[in-house]
Amino acid sequence: MTNTPDDAPPGALDVPGIRAAVERCLDEFLTTKEQTAARHRLPPQAARSLRSFIESGGKRLRPLLCALGWYAAGGHGPPPRPVLRAASALEMFHAFALIHDDIMDRSETRRGRPTLHRALAHQHADQAPDAAAEHLGASAAILIGDLALCWSDELLHTAGLPADRLHAVRHLSDLMREEAMYGQYLDLLTPTTPAHDLRSPLTVIRYKTAKYTCERPLHIGAALAGAGPPVFDACTAFAIPLGEAFQLRDDLLGVFGEPERTGKSRLDDLREGKRTVLMALAHRRANPAQSRTLHELVGRPGLTDHDADRIRTVLIETGARDEVENMIRHRHDRARQALDRAPFPPPAVHALRHIAHRAAHRTV
Amino acid sequence: MTNTPDDAPPGALDVPGIRAAVERCLDEFLTTKEQTAARHRLPPQAARSLRSFIESGGKRLRPLLCALGWYAAGGHGPPPRPVLRAASALEMFHAFALIHDDIMDRSETRRGRPTLHRALAHQHADQAPDAAAEHLGASAAILIGDLALCWSDELLHTAGLPADRLHAVRHLSDLMREEAMYGQYLDLLTPTTPAHDLRSPLTVIRYKTAKYTCERPLHIGAALAGAGPPVFDACTAFAIPLGEAFQLRDDLLGVFGEPERTGKSRLDDLREGKRTVLMALAHRRANPAQSRTLHELVGRPGLTDHDADRIRTVLIETGARDEVENMIRHRHDRARQALDRAPFPPPAVHALRHIAHRAAHRTV
Repeated sequence: MTNTPDDAPPGALDVPGIRAAVERCLDEFLTTKEQTAARHRLPPQAARSLRSFIESGGKRLRPLLCALGWYAAGGHGPPPRPVLRAASALEMFHAFALIHDDIMDRSETRRGRPTLHRALAHQHADQAPDAAAEHLGASAAILIGDLALCWSDELLHTAGLPADRLHAVRHLSDLMREEAMYGQYLDLLTPTTPAHDLRSPLTVIRYKTAKYTCERPLHIGAALAGAGPPVFDACTAFAIPLGEAFQLRDDLLGVFGEPERTGKSRLDDLREGKRTVLMALAHRRANPAQSRTLHELVGRPGLTDHDADRIRTVLIETGARDEVENMIRHRHDRARQALDRAPFPPPAVHALRHIAHRAAHRTV
Repeated sequence: MTNTPDDAPPGALDVPGIRAAVERCLDEFLTTKEQTAARHRLPPQAARSLRSFIESGGKRLRPLLCALGWYAAGGHGPPPRPVLRAASALEMFHAFALIHDDIMDRSETRRGRPTLHRALAHQHADQAPDAAAEHLGASAAILIGDLALCWSDELLHTAGLPADRLHAVRHLSDLMREEAMYGQYLDLLTPTTPAHDLRSPLTVIRYKTAKYTCERPLHIGAALAGAGPPVFDACTAFAIPLGEAFQLRDDLLGVFGEPERTGKSRLDDLREGKRTVLMALAHRRANPAQSRTLHELVGRPGLTDHDADRIRTVLIETGARDEVENMIRHRHDRARQALDRAPFPPPAVHALRHIAHRAAHRTV
């Protein structure tokens, strides 16, 4: 028997409070960067663009999991400043990853607004011809991403951690950063694999989401509290299925979601021809007519709403969508079972169960 | 009276030996990364491409200045492993900066070979149409640059430094990284300033070269030996004019150099319309006919060898080239005078004097 998300135990964690504290920490850090740049007559718009990108939305899943890892390993009370700084470093790293990924994926919108490289290209549109403004926008976004990566690092190593804790956290942070980048590298290369190949999108999910988004933030939080191997192992047992469920849901939302809720166009993934588990399953199950529809339309840059509807019909009629829903359900179960066995204090278990529920069932 | 570069003092430093030790350190680090990736069935080609990029050339100026900063602050004997790792971290950071800058500048060649994004685009040319291969090449190069940035950081924080030294070095490294990025950001934005504006290219030189390339590597080396303020100040007094001379020479070589020696096309800067001090001076001194030539030709993507010769003639006849030579001479003098007053041991002074001489007079 498992708890449902609503029966809060005594000492339930203040999740919105943690989120707000992380946001204050990021805002303070970037405001200082902006002021310092202005004082040195350096361009303050880099820090300003980054701050506005971070403020524009996001679930703060990674900092939250970091804080929950800290509670899972015995931290209690409001997270102290070093924990908040380390958690904020994860969000800053994520801003870097999103900014660069959006350039690589040529995404137009993110969080209901133009992506950073598009917004920056637009700012320069009156000074330069279109192609030059595009290139300037992408270049400035590459640089702002680079700054976010450096600043993520600075947030962590100036967090005020004792040397041994910092050492343990840095090692995990090194692994996390590599996993995120290798995941993205594999993602770039998937178009060179056959459309029905399942292994490649599953490996991308494992690195980009299960490990980078879920497992490592929990590990880093646990290391901040000086955790030992049983806590790390329990974090892994919970986080890997959670992350997979999260990404499978994300892939469904990318095609079937409501753009007003998700803030993302539901044509981007289809136009880009993103190789998801959902799409690989549809290719495997398609009859010849359905297969032709997929090969003709998926990845077409000028894809229309009508084309997208035809693809959606194939995803439904082949049963690919239902199978992904089953995979999500199965992983959500495994994550819950891992929590039942985890040596975490009840308030941490409760909050993690709630996150797993939302990851599996979310609509945004 | 100043020493000439050839009268080596007793205990002269083994500069080629330091360079070789840094190269071994980088090679070992990247070989391990490649092997680890292969063991985890992750793409080993990211580490391999980066290693081949680093091995393809470069003067190793930053690691060398780092080692010399350590000697200047009293280090002696062969640099120990933590100093070599920190010095190697600077070269790894530089690889990141070059890879991303080449994308932003759309450079075709570097060190006599195609730039990384061009080489990667070429690798994918048989799998994808031209525009897609271009984009894939740029995307993979962005990611490999990102990895280099993370690995530069890892080289430093796993260098085996005592906590207090690491803390001092990290602070300087944070400043250096920001200075490099703000310099590049300003460089991106210079096309929005008037062609005769001198302040903008001088500010770019200050951040991208004087501070990032010269001052901070020396500071980091000095901090590795636990230096105090007088050593840091003397490093600055030497490094800023040195770095300015170095970049002014680089700008001259970009237009007047021998491509077989520099490994760079001498059309790239002109085609890109790079805003250099050289070019700003030419605009200031040009008569109406010369001015028309500059406005017509500089920044033209299809610029021919003949066009380039016409621009060179203007740079010579306006006296812009001679004025830049004067600026280099003046800065070289200031760097040498700073060394005369510096509280550095004679072998460090000798080696730094030699570097200043080469930076000012180099042809590669």
